[in-house]
Amino acid sequence: MAGTTHLFIPGPTNIPENVRQSMNLAMEDMRAPDFPEFTLPLFEDLKKVFSLTDGRVFLFPSSGTGAWEAAITNVLSPGDRVLISRFGQFSHLWVDMCERLGLDVDVIDVPWGEGVPVREYAKRLAADTEGKIKAVFACHNETATGVCSDIAEIRAVLDEAYHPALLFVDGVSSVASVDFRMDEWGVDLAVSGSQKGFMLPAGLGILAVSQKALDASKFSQYRKCYFDFADMIATNDQGYFPYTPATQLLRGLRTSLDTLFAEGLGNVYARHNHIAEGVRQAVQGWGLELCAADPKWYSDTVSAICVPDGFDSANVVKTAYHRYQLSLGVGLSKVAGKVFRIGHLGSTNEVMVLAAIAGAEMAMRDVGIPIEAGSGVAAAQEFYRLNNRIELARAS
Amino acid sequence: MAGTTHLFIPGPTNIPENVRQSMNLAMEDMRAPDFPEFTLPLFEDLKKVFSLTDGRVFLFPSSGTGAWEAAITNVLSPGDRVLISRFGQFSHLWVDMCERLGLDVDVIDVPWGEGVPVREYAKRLAADTEGKIKAVFACHNETATGVCSDIAEIRAVLDEAYHPALLFVDGVSSVASVDFRMDEWGVDLAVSGSQKGFMLPAGLGILAVSQKALDASKFSQYRKCYFDFADMIATNDQGYFPYTPATQLLRGLRTSLDTLFAEGLGNVYARHNHIAEGVRQAVQGWGLELCAADPKWYSDTVSAICVPDGFDSANVVKTAYHRYQLSLGVGLSKVAGKVFRIGHLGSTNEVMVLAAIAGAEMAMRDVGIPIEAGSGVAAAQEFYRLNNRIELARAS
Amino acid sequence: MAGTTHLFIPGPTNIPENVRQSMNLAMEDMRAPDFPEFTLPLFEDLKKVFSLTDGRVFLFPSSGTGAWEAAITNVLSPGDRVLISRFGQFSHLWVDMCERLGLDVDVIDVPWGEGVPVREYAKRLAADTEGKIKAVFACHNETATGVCSDIAEIRAVLDEAYHPALLFVDGVSSVASVDFRMDEWGVDLAVSGSQKGFMLPAGLGILAVSQKALDASKFSQYRKCYFDFADMIATNDQGYFPYTPATQLLRGLRTSLDTLFAEGLGNVYARHNHIAEGVRQAVQGWGLELCAADPKWYSDTVSAICVPDGFDSANVVKTAYHRYQLSLGVGLSKVAGKVFRIGHLGSTNEVMVLAAIAGAEMAMRDVGIPIEAGSGVAAAQEFYRLNNRIELARAS
Amino acid sequence: MAGTTHLFIPGPTNIPENVRQSMNLAMEDMRAPDFPEFTLPLFEDLKKVFSLTDGRVFLFPSSGTGAWEAAITNVLSPGDRVLISRFGQFSHLWVDMCERLGLDVDVIDVPWGEGVPVREYAKRLAADTEGKIKAVFACHNETATGVCSDIAEIRAVLDEAYHPALLFVDGVSSVASVDFRMDEWGVDLAVSGSQKGFMLPAGLGILAVSQKALDASKFSQYRKCYFDFADMIATNDQGYFPYTPATQLLRGLRTSLDTLFAEGLGNVYARHNHIAEGVRQAVQGWGLELCAADPKWYSDTVSAICVPDGFDSANVVKTAYHRYQLSLGVGLSKVAGKVFRIGHLGSTNEVMVLAAIAGAEMAMRDVGIPIEAGSGVAAAQEFYRLNNRIELARAS
Repeated sequence: MAGTTHLFIPGPTNIPENVRQSMNLAMEDMRAPDFPEFTLPLFEDLKKVFSLTDGRVFLFPSSGTGAWEAAITNVLSPGDRVLISRFGQFSHLWVDMCERLGLDVDVIDVPWGEGVPVREYAKRLAADTEGKIKAVFACHNETATGVCSDIAEIRAVLDEAYHPALLFVDGVSSVASVDFRMDEWGVDLAVSGSQKGFMLPAGLGILAVSQKALDASKFSQYRKCYFDFADMIATNDQGYFPYTPATQLLRGLRTSLDTLFAEGLGNVYARHNHIAEGVRQAVQGWGLELCAADPKWYSDTVSAICVPDGFDSANVVKTAYHRYQLSLGVGLSKVAGKVFRIGHLGSTNEVMVLAAIAGAEMAMRDVGIPIEAGSGVAAAQEFYRLNNRIELARAS
Repeated sequence: MAGTTHLFIPGPTNIPENVRQSMNLAMEDMRAPDFPEFTLPLFEDLKKVFSLTDGRVFLFPSSGTGAWEAAITNVLSPGDRVLISRFGQFSHLWVDMCERLGLDVDVIDVPWGEGVPVREYAKRLAADTEGKIKAVFACHNETATGVCSDIAEIRAVLDEAYHPALLFVDGVSSVASVDFRMDEWGVDLAVSGSQKGFMLPAGLGILAVSQKALDASKFSQYRKCYFDFADMIATNDQGYFPYTPATQLLRGLRTSLDTLFAEGLGNVYARHNHIAEGVRQAVQGWGLELCAADPKWYSDTVSAICVPDGFDSANVVKTAYHRYQLSLGVGLSKVAGKVFRIGHLGSTNEVMVLAAIAGAEMAMRDVGIPIEAGSGVAAAQEFYRLNNRIELARAS
Repeated sequence: MAGTTHLFIPGPTNIPENVRQSMNLAMEDMRAPDFPEFTLPLFEDLKKVFSLTDGRVFLFPSSGTGAWEAAITNVLSPGDRVLISRFGQFSHLWVDMCERLGLDVDVIDVPWGEGVPVREYAKRLAADTEGKIKAVFACHNETATGVCSDIAEIRAVLDEAYHPALLFVDGVSSVASVDFRMDEWGVDLAVSGSQKGFMLPAGLGILAVSQKALDASKFSQYRKCYFDFADMIATNDQGYFPYTPATQLLRGLRTSLDTLFAEGLGNVYARHNHIAEGVRQAVQGWGLELCAADPKWYSDTVSAICVPDGFDSANVVKTAYHRYQLSLGVGLSKVAGKVFRIGHLGSTNEVMVLAAIAGAEMAMRDVGIPIEAGSGVAAAQEFYRLNNRIELARAS
Repeated sequence: MAGTTHLFIPGPTNIPENVRQSMNLAMEDMRAPDFPEFTLPLFEDLKKVFSLTDGRVFLFPSSGTGAWEAAITNVLSPGDRVLISRFGQFSHLWVDMCERLGLDVDVIDVPWGEGVPVREYAKRLAADTEGKIKAVFACHNETATGVCSDIAEIRAVLDEAYHPALLFVDGVSSVASVDFRMDEWGVDLAVSGSQKGFMLPAGLGILAVSQKALDASKFSQYRKCYFDFADMIATNDQGYFPYTPATQLLRGLRTSLDTLFAEGLGNVYARHNHIAEGVRQAVQGWGLELCAADPKWYSDTVSAICVPDGFDSANVVKTAYHRYQLSLGVGLSKVAGKVFRIGHLGSTNEVMVLAAIAGAEMAMRDVGIPIEAGSGVAAAQEFYRLNNRIELARAS
C-alpha cells in the first residue's frame, strides 16, 4: 500500500515529528546520577497540563486502564461506595472495573449520547446524609460516543451538598486536548494516557492526584504492589522509579510537553475546538447526526457519527480501511453498527481532518449511504476558511 | 504548527515509512570488505527501473542537475551540436546548461504547455545529412508545466532518419513513476534523482547510460573529475566508489527499490495514472484548465493548474502554505503567477491527494477565485470511488 | 558530552539498529481488521523463546514487575502458601510483593552470592505432605548478584516429591539470553520484560504461562482487572487486546524475535556465555572476585564484581559515569558499596564489552583500587581471541 | 552479527544521537516561504567553524571531492599555475584533479609521513617573480598518513614573499575537529565535507571562500554549471538553492553546528587532541610507530600506524572487521600493507577509542604481530585517567 495510512481513531493519535525524533534514541540508565535532572522537572511540568498545583502525578508503564486501576486501588478500599454513571463503552468499562475490584457501585445508566447526569448526582449526594459515598466518578470525555461532560458542574453539586466524596475523572481522551482544571474543579484523581492528547505511543498511564487523595491513599485496604503510590512516591521524590520506567516514552513526553507549552495550552484547546467544529459542520453537510444528543455534550476530541437506519457503520469503517487506507473508529458495544467515529485530537490540522472527512465520505457512498459527494468536505472547508486561526493569530 | 505539513510539490516527495526507517542508521565503512555485497546487486536492481539491460547506472552524491552535467560532460565534447527543445523551466535550465558547457545548441522553443516537438525534431534530423547533431535531448516530464512527452516517438524519428545521434532523456520527474523503457526506446542517457519517484531525500544523482553512450564517453573532451564515468566504473566494478558515497541514501535506495518491486513497477505506474486522473477530474470540477495543452501531454506525476486571468497563482500557493500547512508548487518563470502545481508522485494514495485538493480549494477560494467549495474534491472522489484499485485487484 | 554513553547495566540493554529502526514509526490502529495478522504469529513466535508448546504468552504494557503481579494475582489466591528464596535485591522484591499481596510466604534466606537452595526446597516440599504449598518461586537469574540458578533441578525436586505446586520463575534477566525450557523444566509461569534479552525499551511485561497455570487461574480469588488473564485471553484469541497495547514495542518485538531467530537461539545463548566468560577472565585478571560464590552460579548476563575491602563500589560506578560516560550497575541493598555490575546481555559483542572492561578498569584505578592498568582487558582479549566464535562458525 | 559495528575509520564518523534524531524527518519544501529563516542563519553559523568573517560558504550536494572541484573550477582557469605538494593518497588525488582539470601543476613530492614542505614552498614562491603561481595548495590533514600541516606557516611564507597567490586548503578531515582560522591564516578556499568533523552522513560538500577568492571567481574560464558559485550566490542570498538541496543533511548540519557550539569549538579541538594523544600513547605502548614522521606532523583526527616489517596491515584491518566487527582504515596506495589507521575524529570519547585500541590489539596479535595484550590499552588508559578533561572542567 503506497502512501500514508491515515489515522483518525480517537487514539493512538498522530505523533508529531519532533516527538517522534525524540523517541528515536539509545537506551539509558534509569539509575544514572543525573537522571533526576530529567525527571523532576518532567513531573512538575506535567502537573501544569492538569492545572494541578499541589498533589502529584504518577507515570506508570501501563495503558490508561492501568492508571484507572491505580486510582481506585490506592485511594479506595473494597466495599467503598462510589457513584458513577454509564453512557458509553469506556464509562461502562470503568463501572465494570469498579465492580470487579469490589467497590459498592451506584451506577446511573444514561442513554448513550448523553453525559454525566449532574442533577441525578446532586440528588444522590444530597440523599447520602451519612456520607457513604466515598467517591464520585465522572467520565470527562466518553470516547465511544463523543460526549464531553462538564466537570465543573459536578464539583458544584458536590459543594452544594457539602459532600466530602473524592472526585475521580477519566480524562483519557480529554487531558491535553480540552481545558482541564484540577485545582479549580476540585478533581482528586484524573486519569489519562500517553496515546491521546499527549501525542505519544501507548504505554504510559498518567495519573494526577490531589493532596486530598494522596492523604486518603494512606488508608486504602487494597492489596497492590505494581501500582502502589507509596513505592512511586518514595522513589519519584528522588527522581527515580521503583522499577524500570519506560524511558523512551518519558523522553517523548518531555518533547510533547515542550510542544504543548510552545503552542500554549489555551491555543491547543482552541485548536481542538476549531478542528472539531469543522467535523461537526461536515456531519451537518452530510445531513447526518452525531451520537452526542445535545451541543452541550459535543466532544472536541472525537465525533461519533450516526449512520442512517438500515446501514451498518462497521461497513463504513471497513471500507475506509481497505479501500482508502483510512482508519476510523468503529462503533462499540451498544452503538456497534450505528456509529463510526472520527478522532480529531492530538497533533492535527485542518487539511489532515479534511482528508479524513473526504475518505469517510467516499466510504459512506460506497456502502450506499445517500450523502452527496463533497458535501461534508465543503461544509468543513467553509468553516475552516472563515474561521482561520492564522488570521485570528495575526489580529491578536 | 500542529500536525503534518502536507507536501504536494513535485519533489521532494513523501518518504514511505519503511524507507525512512532504513535511513535511520549508524554510519558504515564504505571500504568494508562486504560492502560490494550490498552495492553490486543495488546497481543491477536499479537498472530494472530504467528497463536497461546492458549499460550501467551511476549514483553520484549530487542532485539531478549534477547527473545532467555528468551526462553531458562524459559523453559529449565542447562544440558538439545538440538538438533540444524548451517548453518549461526545467527544459530551459537544461538548455542553459548545454550552452554554458559550450555545446552548439539547436533549441526549438515550444509554447509552455506542449511537449517535445517530435515533427520538428524529425525535420531537423532529416536535414542533418552530415550527422552534425551528436545528441538529441528530450525532457520526458517537464515538471514546471506538467507535460509528459512520448520518448518512443522520438526514437521513431531518429530511426526514420537513420540518425546516429545519442538520445538524452531528462527523467527526473518520471523515472520510477511512469513507464520508462530505455532498451526499447533506445535511450542512451537517462537522468534522474533520488527525491521524486525514488521517494528518497534529495542528494543522489541517478544516471542510467547505454553501452553506446559508454563507448562514446571514451572520446569526450570535457575536463572533469568529480563526475567522471571512468573513475566510477573502475571502482563500481569492485563494488566501491571513487570517493565517499552517500551510504545513507544508498541504503534508502535499497529499500525504495524493494518497495517498488514489491508493488510491481506496472502497478506503480498504474497507481500514478489513477491518482493523477483524480487530480485532473478535480481541475475539471473546478472549471479550471491544466497548463498541459492537450491530454496527450498530461503528466501523471505533476499537474500544473492555471488560475483564471486576474488572479495570481503565487497567492494561492502562499495562502495554502501559511494558512493550511500545504506546500504546493509555484509557477516558475514564464508561468509564474499563472499556474500552481500539485505534485502527485512517489508514495501517494487517494486520501493524501484529496487532502491536497481540499486545501488547494480553500486557498483558491480565499484569494477569490470563483470555484465552488467541494467541487474538486467531489469530482476526484467519484473518480476514485468508481475506479478503486482495490476492487480491481480483487477481481483479477 | 561527545560520543556514546556506554550502557552496561543489566537492562535496559543496547537496542540493535534494526530493532531501533522498526520502532521509528507512525502510530497504527490497534483495532484494524488486519492487526491480528500481525499479533497472532507474534504470540506464537514469542512462545518459542520460552520453549513453550502449549500454554500462552501475555504481553502487558508494564514493566517486568507488572508481569510478576499478573502471575501471582491470576493464578494464586490471598493466603496461598508459596515457597520462595531470597538472595538478592530482585528475589527480595519478589518476596516483598508476595507478602504485600497477602500470600503465606515461606522464605528461605540464602547468602547473597548463592542461588536457589534446591536441597532446602526439596526438604520443605517433602515435608509438605498436605500439599499446602501452592507454588514454588525461583529467581532464575538474580540480577543484583549475577547468580543464575538451575531451574531443571527445581523441577527435579518437585517431581521427586510428587508435589503438585506450580513453578513460578523470574526470567527477567535470563529469557532470550540464556537457555530457557519451559516445557522441559515444567515451568508454569515465566516472567520477563522487554528491556533485557529482548533488546527493547522497557514497557512490555512478558509472561509465559503453562496450560496447568491457565487452568489454575480460573480459581484465583484475587481482585484484578488490568492484569486479568481472562480479558487478555478473550481478546488475544482474536488478535486484539482488552485495552490499547503498546504497538510500538510490539513492532519492535517482532523485529527482536526475527533477529534472535536469525542468529539462532542456541547461538544467542552461546554468544552470551562467550561474552560473559571474557568478563570473568577480566575479573580474574584484576585479581578480584565475583559476588557469585561458585562457578555453578555464574550468570551469563550480568557479573557483580566485588571491590576490595575499604573501597566503595558506588564510587567506581559514579566515576565511570561522570568521567568516562560509562554506565555500570550499582550494588543494591545488602551489596551496596560492595559490588559493581557489568551487564553483558542483549545485543553485545566482544569489543563492546572490552570497552566496558577498560572503562571499569580506569574508574577502579581512579578511586585507588590496586589493579594493574590493562590487566582485565588483556585477560578478556586473550580469551576472546583464542575462542573467537567466527572461527568456530567457519569450522562448523 | 550482534551488537554495534565499531566505526573507527577517518570518516564517515559516528553520528551523535541528537544529529541522528534531527535527520529522521519528513521531506520539506525547499521553496517554502520560510525556508530562508532556516538557511540564512545556517550559512552564517557555518562560517564560524571556519573562523571566516567575510566571504561565504557553499553547500553542495556532493562529497568533499565535489567541493575540491568547485574550488578549482570557480576560481582558477585552465592553464593556471598552481603549487602543490603530495605526501599521501588524498594530496595525491588533489594533484590528480588539478592535472585532469588542466592546471599547470607544480608538484613537490615529499616522503609519505611528512607534511607540506613549507621551506620548499617559500623557495618556489620567491622564485616566482612574475607571479605565475596563481594558487598554493595545502592539504591540512592528510588522512592517509595521519599528518597535519601548519597552515599558518604557509601563510607566513606567502606573506614573506609578498606573493598574491590564493591559498587553497583541503580541510576535509580537519575542519570542525582541529583549529582552523581562515581569516587569520589568510586561507582563500577551504574544502570540507559533512562526514568527518561535522558528524553527518556523507553527501554535503562544504566550501568556505574568502572575499578575495570570490572576486577572483569572476574571471574564471572554466565551464561549469553544477558547481557554479554564481548560481549559488544568486539563490543563497535569498535563502534558496539553484537546484534541490539535500535538506535532510542541512537539517542535520543545523544540529551539528548547535552541538559544536554548545561544547565550544575550543573544547572540541582540545577533546580531539586529548583523544588522539591517548591513541598515540597506545601506539607507543605497543612499541610501534606512527606513519607521521615527526610529532609536529601528528594528526589529532587520524593515526596511521605502521605494522612491523614482514606483516601486512591489510590483514589487521580484515581481521578486525571479520572477527571483531571493528572497522579500521586500510593503508592506501604507497602505504598499502604498511599502515592501518584509527580514525578518532567527530563524536568520540575515551571509552569509544579504548574499544578501538583493544580491538586493534587483538587483531594484531591474531596476525602474529608481537605486541603484548593490553599494552596499548593500558598506555591509553593511563593517559586518559591522568589527563581527564572532566576534572579540568571542574577545576576551571
